[in-house]
Amino acid sequence: MLSVAPLLTDLYQLTMAHVYFENGMNDTAVFELAVRRLPPGRRFLVAAGLEQAIDYLEQLCFSAADLEFLGAMGTFPRTFLDHLADLRFTGSVHAMPEGTPFFANEPVLRVTAPIAEAQLVESRLLNIIHFQTLIASKAVRCVLAADGRHLVDFGMRRAHEADAALYAARAAYLAGFDGTATVEAGRRFGMALFGTMAHSFIEAHDREEEAFRHFVTSRPESATLLIDTYDTRRAAHRVVALARELESRGLPPAIRSVRIDSGDLAAEARAVRDILDLGGFRQIQILLSGGLDEYSIEKLVRAGVPVDAFGVGTSLDVSDDAPTLDMAYKLQEYAGRPRRKLSSGKVSLPGPKQVFRECDSYGKSAGDQITLDGEQAGGRPLLCEVMRAGRRIAERPQLEQIRGYCARELKALPQVLRDLSEVHEPLPYSVEISRKLTELVARMDAAGD
Amino acid sequence: MLSVAPLLTDLYQLTMAHVYFENGMNDTAVFELAVRRLPPGRRFLVAAGLEQAIDYLEQLCFSAADLEFLGAMGTFPRTFLDHLADLRFTGSVHAMPEGTPFFANEPVLRVTAPIAEAQLVESRLLNIIHFQTLIASKAVRCVLAADGRHLVDFGMRRAHEADAALYAARAAYLAGFDGTATVEAGRRFGMALFGTMAHSFIEAHDREEEAFRHFVTSRPESATLLIDTYDTRRAAHRVVALARELESRGLPPAIRSVRIDSGDLAAEARAVRDILDLGGFRQIQILLSGGLDEYSIEKLVRAGVPVDAFGVGTSLDVSDDAPTLDMAYKLQEYAGRPRRKLSSGKVSLPGPKQVFRECDSYGKSAGDQITLDGEQAGGRPLLCEVMRAGRRIAERPQLEQIRGYCARELKALPQVLRDLSEVHEPLPYSVEISRKLTELVARMDAAGD
Repeated sequence: MLSVAPLLTDLYQLTMAHVYFENGMNDTAVFELAVRRLPPGRRFLVAAGLEQAIDYLEQLCFSAADLEFLGAMGTFPRTFLDHLADLRFTGSVHAMPEGTPFFANEPVLRVTAPIAEAQLVESRLLNIIHFQTLIASKAVRCVLAADGRHLVDFGMRRAHEADAALYAARAAYLAGFDGTATVEAGRRFGMALFGTMAHSFIEAHDREEEAFRHFVTSRPESATLLIDTYDTRRAAHRVVALARELESRGLPPAIRSVRIDSGDLAAEARAVRDILDLGGFRQIQILLSGGLDEYSIEKLVRAGVPVDAFGVGTSLDVSDDAPTLDMAYKLQEYAGRPRRKLSSGKVSLPGPKQVFRECDSYGKSAGDQITLDGEQAGGRPLLCEVMRAGRRIAERPQLEQIRGYCARELKALPQVLRDLSEVHEPLPYSVEISRKLTELVARMDAAGD
Repeated sequence: MLSVAPLLTDLYQLTMAHVYFENGMNDTAVFELAVRRLPPGRRFLVAAGLEQAIDYLEQLCFSAADLEFLGAMGTFPRTFLDHLADLRFTGSVHAMPEGTPFFANEPVLRVTAPIAEAQLVESRLLNIIHFQTLIASKAVRCVLAADGRHLVDFGMRRAHEADAALYAARAAYLAGFDGTATVEAGRRFGMALFGTMAHSFIEAHDREEEAFRHFVTSRPESATLLIDTYDTRRAAHRVVALARELESRGLPPAIRSVRIDSGDLAAEARAVRDILDLGGFRQIQILLSGGLDEYSIEKLVRAGVPVDAFGVGTSLDVSDDAPTLDMAYKLQEYAGRPRRKLSSGKVSLPGPKQVFRECDSYGKSAGDQITLDGEQAGGRPLLCEVMRAGRRIAERPQLEQIRGYCARELKALPQVLRDLSEVHEPLPYSVEISRKLTELVARMDAAGD
């Protein structure tokens, strides 16, 4: 499977491993993965992708074909390739559980392993965790905006190729979406699937009512009819007429909802709601889609537009307003000594770290503290050991459990973090650096290290 | 392989196929894939992803496990599942060759097939072609900006999961990049691989010169040394000292280049160039990286900064300033009748179409015309038949050939299209709608169709 392909890495990971091997550098390294700055408009991020990261680490192993390819490059000697043939990930991993809200500079994952192993896995670990964290962090904003209405991922077509479509569906689901339209994601991750119809389906029929009739006749289990191909309100009347006809013929109420995908969604939804209600079909729901994001969802909800569900596509699956996070995997310690980079503009906190989160008396998250690992602090530690000696140490959580945990964590966030608008003042949630960590930085500064 | 997974689709493609099946709707449909609007700042796009799209269509086939999953959903009857078991793509495809520059509303691909087949493939076709087109269109801007300097894809870690990293490398290469750091992409697509070292490599050593020495000793075939971990200029002096030492010991000149990844790249590159030149190492090249995009590359090149190569990561692999294209796959004709949608804001040109491109007497592209298929026009037709009766009809082009074609097409573009800055006036390149197509639209408008 591609997901564990060991050559899915940057070439320099292999050249560095080679040099470490040749020079007998095999001491323990600690790397941490963190986001240096939150994207504009984000008040927090949501950790995701850990399960796939653990799978990758557990299964890491170079095949004969992989080694043959590397050998043919002509720069890796046989001795090193033989060493790679036996290489497995033997380290330990501490990480925030998937679904945990987190902030800038907080490590979400820490790898402790012989340096070549810990280094080799950098590219793919980032590739996995960056993407799902990006999407979960976007999805959670839609969830907050939708305020209890249903949300479905419609984004496969403009997701960045196949894996992105699948893992965007997963990340959105754990962040609180109700399901996806992507069939393979439903199969793979066991989440609910939703499907409606395309405009082309309506257009392929000579008359819109014929298209509706074909659909409800062939699929009498809860159809969603797309009503904006020609004239939305006229189509809503057709839906009422068809629903009445089914009723009068004693057939099951096949029409569960209507979808509006273009135009002034607020005005159309209100008009359609009236038409359906006056027609006696209050139970037929309204699904809105078409270029929606958290801001347009919030606006529709706040305006009291009658809407039961949202389909969110492009903006979700690529996190369009912030398509990347400034996430990096940094060496924190090697051979027992803290390490850091001094290049201008990219200073990091050295040493293996932990994050503690305190709650107030109402159970709301009240502030975080980034400490050195092993340092005592108030609140609960967010990084938990998930792998030891290269093996997963806890049972694999169900996606539903992760989703439930994320929902509880979300509820525990103070209201100011749950708002969507951009924060211009400093974030009104404190993330402090512990005394010992501050002292370590000062010591390293003084030593010019 | 996932790339041909038939369930990698939106559920509604299957529900529509079911309804078509139940109602005996099996006439020929024509769908076209086009971009409705160019993203801000883009003057043209570059078609890419066709090879993978053809692979997908040729291999489309539901496995027993796929059908079992669909059956378990409880809404697809056995008769339809049996029909799916036999379903293959039997249609024809016309498409612009990969590497072709194109404009808004120009179809880049046309599918002609029984409607259920043509509809079923929508989600994955878009997913494949949208992504590679997006990246090729971004990459080509870096290529124009770099003005002949080398370009390497460094973006795997922040690409949107695994496939995106691989296909971004492919799309960037066909648009003119020189290679990638992603090993699996190099293996799969046969492109050059480049690797340097990470800051962690330097930091894991107690002294920077020791890190440099280890690297050139273990890998004497053209090392690239990263020199910005602590103090870039001091590191450049260390590089000179090491290169002198290798020379004096009669060893091969292992240091091919230095990489600067942070700080004021222009100032640092100039200072480093001076240090290397004064040290007698004019042949040691300078590679710049660190948050680069086409704009920063252009600025560095125009300012005459001494730079031989650029590593471009995040901005390339997610096309950060425009992470999606407004690309859609629309029904143009069914059962011999042109079709289109009338929903507000999304009017499209009906009927199967072709695009003709005219050249001026200097061989420069002078303007396009969108015509009805079969209509005569000046210039060369851009859409070529690539599949017939479900089979690829031409030999699979080598990626190098595609890259060469793209480079020639790029050269043929008028200068005004090759500039990077945003266009505020209408695009100074004409894309006309043919007389017959205009007449068809008028006829359909008049008929209220």
